[in-house]
Amino acid sequence: MTIKKTYGAYCLDLDGTIYRGTEPVEEAAAFVKRLQLKEIEPYFVTNNASMTQQQLKAKLAGFGIDAKKERIMSSAIAAAKYIKRWYSERSVYMIGSDGLDQALRQEGIERVEEDAGIVLMGIDRNITYEKLAAACLEIRKGAVFLSTNQDLAFPSEKGFLPGNGAFTALVAASTDVDPVYIGKPEIHMLDAIQYESGLEKSEMVMIGDNYDTDIQAGIRFGIDTIHVNTGVTRMETVLEKEQPPSFAIENLKFWEV
Amino acid sequence: MTIKKTYGAYCLDLDGTIYRGTEPVEEAAAFVKRLQLKEIEPYFVTNNASMTQQQLKAKLAGFGIDAKKERIMSSAIAAAKYIKRWYSERSVYMIGSDGLDQALRQEGIERVEEDAGIVLMGIDRNITYEKLAAACLEIRKGAVFLSTNQDLAFPSEKGFLPGNGAFTALVAASTDVDPVYIGKPEIHMLDAIQYESGLEKSEMVMIGDNYDTDIQAGIRFGIDTIHVNTGVTRMETVLEKEQPPSFAIENLKFWEV
Repeated sequence: MTIKKTYGAYCLDLDGTIYRGTEPVEEAAAFVKRLQLKEIEPYFVTNNASMTQQQLKAKLAGFGIDAKKERIMSSAIAAAKYIKRWYSERSVYMIGSDGLDQALRQEGIERVEEDAGIVLMGIDRNITYEKLAAACLEIRKGAVFLSTNQDLAFPSEKGFLPGNGAFTALVAASTDVDPVYIGKPEIHMLDAIQYESGLEKSEMVMIGDNYDTDIQAGIRFGIDTIHVNTGVTRMETVLEKEQPPSFAIENLKFWEV
Repeated sequence: MTIKKTYGAYCLDLDGTIYRGTEPVEEAAAFVKRLQLKEIEPYFVTNNASMTQQQLKAKLAGFGIDAKKERIMSSAIAAAKYIKRWYSERSVYMIGSDGLDQALRQEGIERVEEDAGIVLMGIDRNITYEKLAAACLEIRKGAVFLSTNQDLAFPSEKGFLPGNGAFTALVAASTDVDPVYIGKPEIHMLDAIQYESGLEKSEMVMIGDNYDTDIQAGIRFGIDTIHVNTGVTRMETVLEKEQPPSFAIENLKFWEV
């Protein structure tokens, strides 16, 4: 049995949905191909802020998926678009990696080291005391505090390493100011897709494996959600939620386009 | 009018009590001299974990105070003594500065980079992602999590900079493990003084300017407390507390020895 409902924007999570670590989820790769045969280009929606769109496109290509670069919505891209849309006059003090830096460049946003209108945090493997201190000082002087995502930890071959959410928690604890998070479960990535596509919410669907991030983002934004049983949250857990997804399927083989 | 009550151990906070930034609190310096004339050597109790006992002694000497080095109880010294007393067999993965390193050496505690029995955090201006990641990994593998103090921010000429409590919050958020804090308002520094001196609690007094750290530590440990109105917490605020200090005085000129 398959389900068939057609959308204008299919917003696909990456890790756990399109691939698992270094392995593709075959049914998802095939689903993307089926969409593209019908000339529908899906969106790829990831909390990752360290990689550029080009790097993410290359990663997807390694799994046999031909993603349109401009359809890749990372939390870095969404952060830059958020700043451009809501704070176009403000300069940014940034902690982060290439992905975030390039996202700001793409939107023509000025980076400064002092007297910033916005502090924007993303994961930075070259973090220093001075960078964190500068973020705290700028926020205390009144800068708006944004962070790409609240991921507290992420898996590595060594075990779980601290994620951007943990570094953001440091700055929030020290300044007693809570940030606006851009990534899932917040709605800003989906909002950016709607804003640029001009679609109605009824024409959008968020597809993902993680109830607390992917499905929550879709629910909060008020669009349809499809849970796939290929990653973090088990289907039986999802079905017991007070707010279940619109649809729950084993994998994307069960979704007709 | 002066108050007179004699103790075996006078435990004096430093910043806000003995000095304010770079200026001595004259009445406190005179108080220390009066004690010493009666052959009473006071204890100096500070959450600072970055300076060694020798460095703190030199700082006090700069304010005209001749402190006995072994009577200086920093949160670094107390942390090392805590480990020695309760976890004598365990090796330590340390994030911190000279003060903490030397405190561990003094107690003969082994430092390791992996497979630690304890993770101990203090302020480290040379913090790196790798150090924080190692702390997270060791805690997730089961190491006991200790931190010198929960100070979230401290003043500098530039403004408030992130303190050890903020870095500890990062590791706690990422691992979902709460640390044991050594510094005030926790009791471990006072406990170490009692343990080494063999005094009864009734013979001890904690003297400080900060209700939330100094006075709270004394109250929680169950000893007398003297609030001085020379630093953070105003006397009128202190007197309104549900648990006020045993005594509240303008400064230590009003305490007879």
